[in-house]
Amino acid sequence: MKALIINGPNLNYLGKRKPEIYGNRSLEELNEYINSYYKKDTLEFFQSNHEGSIIDKIQEASLKYEGIVINAGAFTHYSYAIRDAIEACEIPIVEVHLSNVAARERFRSISVISEVCQGTVAGFGMESYILGIRGLKSLIVD
Amino acid sequence: MKALIINGPNLNYLGKRKPEIYGNRSLEELNEYINSYYKKDTLEFFQSNHEGSIIDKIQEASLKYEGIVINAGAFTHYSYAIRDAIEACEIPIVEVHLSNVAARERFRSISVISEVCQGTVAGFGMESYILGIRGLKSLIVD
Amino acid sequence: MKALIINGPNLNYLGKRKPEIYGNRSLEELNEYINSYYKKDTLEFFQSNHEGSIIDKIQEASLKYEGIVINAGAFTHYSYAIRDAIEACEIPIVEVHLSNVAARERFRSISVISEVCQGTVAGFGMESYILGIRGLKSLIVD
Amino acid sequence: MKALIINGPNLNYLGKRKPEIYGNRSLEELNEYINSYYKKDTLEFFQSNHEGSIIDKIQEASLKYEGIVINAGAFTHYSYAIRDAIEACEIPIVEVHLSNVAARERFRSISVISEVCQGTVAGFGMESYILGIRGLKSLIVD
Amino acid sequence: MKALIINGPNLNYLGKRKPEIYGNRSLEELNEYINSYYKKDTLEFFQSNHEGSIIDKIQEASLKYEGIVINAGAFTHYSYAIRDAIEACEIPIVEVHLSNVAARERFRSISVISEVCQGTVAGFGMESYILGIRGLKSLIVD
Amino acid sequence: MKALIINGPNLNYLGKRKPEIYGNRSLEELNEYINSYYKKDTLEFFQSNHEGSIIDKIQEASLKYEGIVINAGAFTHYSYAIRDAIEACEIPIVEVHLSNVAARERFRSISVISEVCQGTVAGFGMESYILGIRGLKSLIVD
Amino acid sequence: MKALIINGPNLNYLGKRKPEIYGNRSLEELNEYINSYYKKDTLEFFQSNHEGSIIDKIQEASLKYEGIVINAGAFTHYSYAIRDAIEACEIPIVEVHLSNVAARERFRSISVISEVCQGTVAGFGMESYILGIRGLKSLIVD
Amino acid sequence: MKALIINGPNLNYLGKRKPEIYGNRSLEELNEYINSYYKKDTLEFFQSNHEGSIIDKIQEASLKYEGIVINAGAFTHYSYAIRDAIEACEIPIVEVHLSNVAARERFRSISVISEVCQGTVAGFGMESYILGIRGLKSLIVD
Amino acid sequence: MKALIINGPNLNYLGKRKPEIYGNRSLEELNEYINSYYKKDTLEFFQSNHEGSIIDKIQEASLKYEGIVINAGAFTHYSYAIRDAIEACEIPIVEVHLSNVAARERFRSISVISEVCQGTVAGFGMESYILGIRGLKSLIVD
Amino acid sequence: MKALIINGPNLNYLGKRKPEIYGNRSLEELNEYINSYYKKDTLEFFQSNHEGSIIDKIQEASLKYEGIVINAGAFTHYSYAIRDAIEACEIPIVEVHLSNVAARERFRSISVISEVCQGTVAGFGMESYILGIRGLKSLIVD
Amino acid sequence: MKALIINGPNLNYLGKRKPEIYGNRSLEELNEYINSYYKKDTLEFFQSNHEGSIIDKIQEASLKYEGIVINAGAFTHYSYAIRDAIEACEIPIVEVHLSNVAARERFRSISVISEVCQGTVAGFGMESYILGIRGLKSLIVD
Amino acid sequence: MKALIINGPNLNYLGKRKPEIYGNRSLEELNEYINSYYKKDTLEFFQSNHEGSIIDKIQEASLKYEGIVINAGAFTHYSYAIRDAIEACEIPIVEVHLSNVAARERFRSISVISEVCQGTVAGFGMESYILGIRGLKSLIVD
Repeated sequence: MKALIINGPNLNYLGKRKPEIYGNRSLEELNEYINSYYKKDTLEFFQSNHEGSIIDKIQEASLKYEGIVINAGAFTHYSYAIRDAIEACEIPIVEVHLSNVAARERFRSISVISEVCQGTVAGFGMESYILGIRGLKSLIVD
Repeated sequence: MKALIINGPNLNYLGKRKPEIYGNRSLEELNEYINSYYKKDTLEFFQSNHEGSIIDKIQEASLKYEGIVINAGAFTHYSYAIRDAIEACEIPIVEVHLSNVAARERFRSISVISEVCQGTVAGFGMESYILGIRGLKSLIVD
Repeated sequence: MKALIINGPNLNYLGKRKPEIYGNRSLEELNEYINSYYKKDTLEFFQSNHEGSIIDKIQEASLKYEGIVINAGAFTHYSYAIRDAIEACEIPIVEVHLSNVAARERFRSISVISEVCQGTVAGFGMESYILGIRGLKSLIVD
Repeated sequence: MKALIINGPNLNYLGKRKPEIYGNRSLEELNEYINSYYKKDTLEFFQSNHEGSIIDKIQEASLKYEGIVINAGAFTHYSYAIRDAIEACEIPIVEVHLSNVAARERFRSISVISEVCQGTVAGFGMESYILGIRGLKSLIVD
Repeated sequence: MKALIINGPNLNYLGKRKPEIYGNRSLEELNEYINSYYKKDTLEFFQSNHEGSIIDKIQEASLKYEGIVINAGAFTHYSYAIRDAIEACEIPIVEVHLSNVAARERFRSISVISEVCQGTVAGFGMESYILGIRGLKSLIVD
Repeated sequence: MKALIINGPNLNYLGKRKPEIYGNRSLEELNEYINSYYKKDTLEFFQSNHEGSIIDKIQEASLKYEGIVINAGAFTHYSYAIRDAIEACEIPIVEVHLSNVAARERFRSISVISEVCQGTVAGFGMESYILGIRGLKSLIVD
Repeated sequence: MKALIINGPNLNYLGKRKPEIYGNRSLEELNEYINSYYKKDTLEFFQSNHEGSIIDKIQEASLKYEGIVINAGAFTHYSYAIRDAIEACEIPIVEVHLSNVAARERFRSISVISEVCQGTVAGFGMESYILGIRGLKSLIVD
Repeated sequence: MKALIINGPNLNYLGKRKPEIYGNRSLEELNEYINSYYKKDTLEFFQSNHEGSIIDKIQEASLKYEGIVINAGAFTHYSYAIRDAIEACEIPIVEVHLSNVAARERFRSISVISEVCQGTVAGFGMESYILGIRGLKSLIVD
Repeated sequence: MKALIINGPNLNYLGKRKPEIYGNRSLEELNEYINSYYKKDTLEFFQSNHEGSIIDKIQEASLKYEGIVINAGAFTHYSYAIRDAIEACEIPIVEVHLSNVAARERFRSISVISEVCQGTVAGFGMESYILGIRGLKSLIVD
Repeated sequence: MKALIINGPNLNYLGKRKPEIYGNRSLEELNEYINSYYKKDTLEFFQSNHEGSIIDKIQEASLKYEGIVINAGAFTHYSYAIRDAIEACEIPIVEVHLSNVAARERFRSISVISEVCQGTVAGFGMESYILGIRGLKSLIVD
Repeated sequence: MKALIINGPNLNYLGKRKPEIYGNRSLEELNEYINSYYKKDTLEFFQSNHEGSIIDKIQEASLKYEGIVINAGAFTHYSYAIRDAIEACEIPIVEVHLSNVAARERFRSISVISEVCQGTVAGFGMESYILGIRGLKSLIVD
Repeated sequence: MKALIINGPNLNYLGKRKPEIYGNRSLEELNEYINSYYKKDTLEFFQSNHEGSIIDKIQEASLKYEGIVINAGAFTHYSYAIRDAIEACEIPIVEVHLSNVAARERFRSISVISEVCQGTVAGFGMESYILGIRGLKSLIVD
């Protein structure tokens, strides 16, 4: 399996932003941690603060990957454009969140992309990505 | 690790109800499938259509288990009593759903228990439980 | 035709509660009145104040009956668990109400079960059950 | 008993419109079917696409009939003028619907006339009218 | 001054409908009472249960009258078509109501025509029309 | 008849505030205009920017007057305390407004006092008071 | 192609009502302008202020025309009865508006008929009809 | 006076759940504390996590007790079935809460039972019960 | 203990206003009744129809009293200024109501001050004050 | 006339995404089809998944083009920044949609840009662009 | 420039109320601090807990001052009467707040006066007044 | 002090867009005006129509500047991604607006970033920036 891990806005700031919620490891450390579970070149990592770049990436993904794990950051709550990109994508996509979004600010309890993702994992910190990748795998195998 | 798997109302009907959404394996088959991943007596399974019985079970659980994985079925959407039981419970609790609830009827997109669970997994069919237990484990180890 | 008549919470209090709305005959008298229209053993009657017991009963019903007539009492307005049980049930189910619920308190004008029942009858007092059974019959024959 | 059966907008189109919901018999066939249950001249049938004509008819009805069965079609959802006519009418009025309106578009789940009708029957196809007339009869006898 | 008095749906039923709210005089008696205050041919009276007929009448009115007093009955609460007719009309229009609509059912507290009328009088029974005509006069003189 | 005319906040600013809406005559000129229609000492005038003073005045009024005409200004939209004073008052009270409040800002379309006043007159400028007093008279005579 | 052009309430008032929004040509001039683009007898024009008459006309249309262009005027915003007539109609129907309804009063931004029309054209004045007919043609040809 | 004290879901967990809000005495200690104020057998105590059991208990209560003090726990916020049981009960019922529910989560600020209880006491910890019983007594004496 | 009893708008009208809800004893009689339970000079009584005066009084209170019992009348539902005064006050404050506000008009079910008071007592008539003072005492002692 | 055709996010995916809604021709084919109607260099085509790039393009457009036809894709529903760019633009702008957005997901029925565009065309597939350009032309000529 | 500084309810309590939000300097100290920036008699200070007194003051201000800086305290959120006074006032008015009201309770995020003030400054503690006065000055000079 | 001034979408269009609201000076003139108040290299100016670029800039800012003044333009109303960037930023951030946003379209009255900025200044035209910088300075000094 080859999969793409997409991280949205401000996730490049991991470790610096609200460590009590997001933990204090950086995005690089997160990526390394995730990567350590898989064979080389199984996963590719992409992060952007630009909604359009994330859409571009999702569109290209179906040719190169068998699935996507996405933490869309704050775009989760309003980017219908990313939602449309996900819906149009032919490979399965899993939504992950580091924190338990339901237990935070009210606007974070609405996800406009859940409806078009295959599954969701939230609240397990870095482990959310590991679980998301495993879930993605089970969806591809099905 | 010893964990309790709670299934709420109508999950005893699995395999008979909406197989296109919930799959066609029965609850017994689901439990066996989950159990096959773990050592004997690691997991205990409980199902009830009675809100009060689920609350009773959650209250007793903290003495016997290290964590709970709960699929509260339709109680997810309105049982503030189960929510209070979860909130009062001293062991970590993970919410799971077989289907991607966000992509179904509107009332299913509101969970009154997410806020007091540690994490959520939804949309991976039977695999949701496996991911939920793994996530629970990572929370206990932390 | 064999049918099950389910009465929800507080309907065992019939005749004592708000007689200007619900009439002053007891549930036993209501059951006898309904029964007098049919051959012996055509109908079975069940009443409970427990949501879980009503769900249990609906789940068992499809093996023994050809249809159900349900007055879910106040559960009508919030029990998504009973709704799921009805939706999963393979035999037709008709919703009945003694009073014209639309003309009473605001919360009574919302039924979370109507959407998954085949038909609804409300406002004719005890006669609502007679009409509901007749309607159920026509659905089974169809 | 002499009763008036009122059918609102687009019910003259019965059999042509959405047969999977409304069946494929025409309004004339529906009327004949209903009439076959009763003695000659017991029932009168009236259909109109004009809100004002339905109000006129309801106003005249109390002198000639003992009750009304009305399927107000889409007027059900917004015609407060028909509601006022029903409320002012001295004979009992029963609301009927061919389909289970609660299971269709959202706007159909709101009836502005239920509150002032004596009872409601919905979801039994043509049988809804038979049940409605029987229910009306029981209200008149009471 | 020549003025047109328009009465909407169910006002032809005056005296028969809810006399504790609307009084027990008929529309004819109301018209005579109002007329007795003015010179012959000052006022013309029009009543209809048909929304379209009221619109037709409003459109024709600007050639024959200097102003209109309208009690639109239940159309008050939803007829944007009458609203448009009033807004397009070049002569002043005054809205009147027999009862104090704010103290009745919730839906009666919304008027979609007030915004395009010049003034409103409500709650004085038959006297509302006398006050409305006097107010209309003052608007014409201004 | 002896009546009290109450004017609420900012009506002492009449003639200076938004003359295109409220006209350019002062409150004194308005009072004189109104007074010129009646015998000496028929009317008493009271204005205050203080909610509490208006409540005090309404409480005292039932001993000295037969009725009240009130333009509560902006208090119309939120003063439940004035509403309670009006509701407790044993003499009839009529609500008046200079402008057509329904055609202005959204918050002005809600009156918390209409429900407990006997009648309402709005949109006729100074004439609203004349009509309000006449309406009050008809209520007292009734 | 033979098509029916339906104009709803107050459109017979064109040229007289709000010329800054609707232009100052009359409905007759609008019809002539549209007609000049097509061969004789291609188009038929119908206008009514009566909701029921518009429903009658839509019902008859499928036998005589290949498509309908409708400007339902204010009925656009609340006539679920016209909506049902459109939905039941077997020929394609295009919704047009002279003005850009989205830029006017709030209630005009809701159309209860758009959902059941094939396409919508708004904001081009008289040209909206020309575009609507052309669009209709492309739908028929498809 | 003989009174029944009903405690709803999770109140058997008192002392263990959120001690900063609910205090750290157990339900048994609470009951003893309350009991110490009254003669033996004046009060009976009942706790259940089962909605249906609470309804059963309320129904039986009117024969044995002169009044009820109820802390319905989370059922306060959605159990219309308990509400109906309270409304049908012929003896006075007082609602009590340990904490000031208005100052906590939003869902706790809505009580569906207050409307049918005679009075409410909230925010005084264990003392709420003492005040509630005293208030109940005053209602019975009245 | 020295405590201040504050009564808000229209409570000086007690005995005259809606005796079926508020009883028919005057505020003076209420105060005497309350006072009879305590030693001389334990309680001071203050009533005002002026929001500002109540705020002034609350601000001064913390120097002279150990606690406040307040029935803010209609200010309960909108006076955020009184709320701020209560929140800033260093002594405990208990909210009381004569009637069961939850069972009356909709606007009365919202209290903007409950959140910042320590406790609430409602529905026991004059006894509400006695219970409120007792509750206040228990809070001070704690 | 020189015009700019702007296509928003995911429209570069045309032909691949939901062909039952959007047809199966690619964006290039769509552009060629549109271009075939006009003289060379009349139209310029621009597509981007980046909100900022679309804003940049709109700002530059007024110097080079006489008008814009825009299908803003999912940005239609939330990009107030594009709305501001359109509002600030001195040349007319027409909004087009391939599908009938009103008949799809709820969030698609809200357009934040309609209010500041001159006109809208939706539901005619590729023909929507042809109609939009023709409409734009009529606006420029006016 | 001569300006009036108005402080609303509970601001006389500054230094005592929530020092973590409002700082611990008193209103007198605040006034002195502000005054130290300006020539003698440039500024006048007014504080009241009475809505009516603030309205009186605003009305008188236009004769004596060139502008007003107002911190309306909790009146900010509901006093439409103060809003009307501000709107009627001929001199510019600037709204200031010590704290960042958007980051506090929900009800504080709504200001009914912002719409009629010229500008707003919030969140800078005492410095908010200095900035507000400077802003006011720039508006007067313009 | 070194500060960064960020201007969001369409602010590069200043002077061309709605000069009655935004004034007719260009962004360059605005920047020069602001700069003239400070020593060389105190301020850096950044404008972008791209949400992602603004987020990138905010993330980099904490290393080079002591504070940020941001006018996020239309992003103010929906960019939760910029909100997250601001919240994660360790230096103080002040929100400014040229116009009084509360007095314009409804959507402009909601700011999703105010809650995480330290302070807000709006309505003073170019002066808003000067006041914002001064306020920022006072926050840094504190």
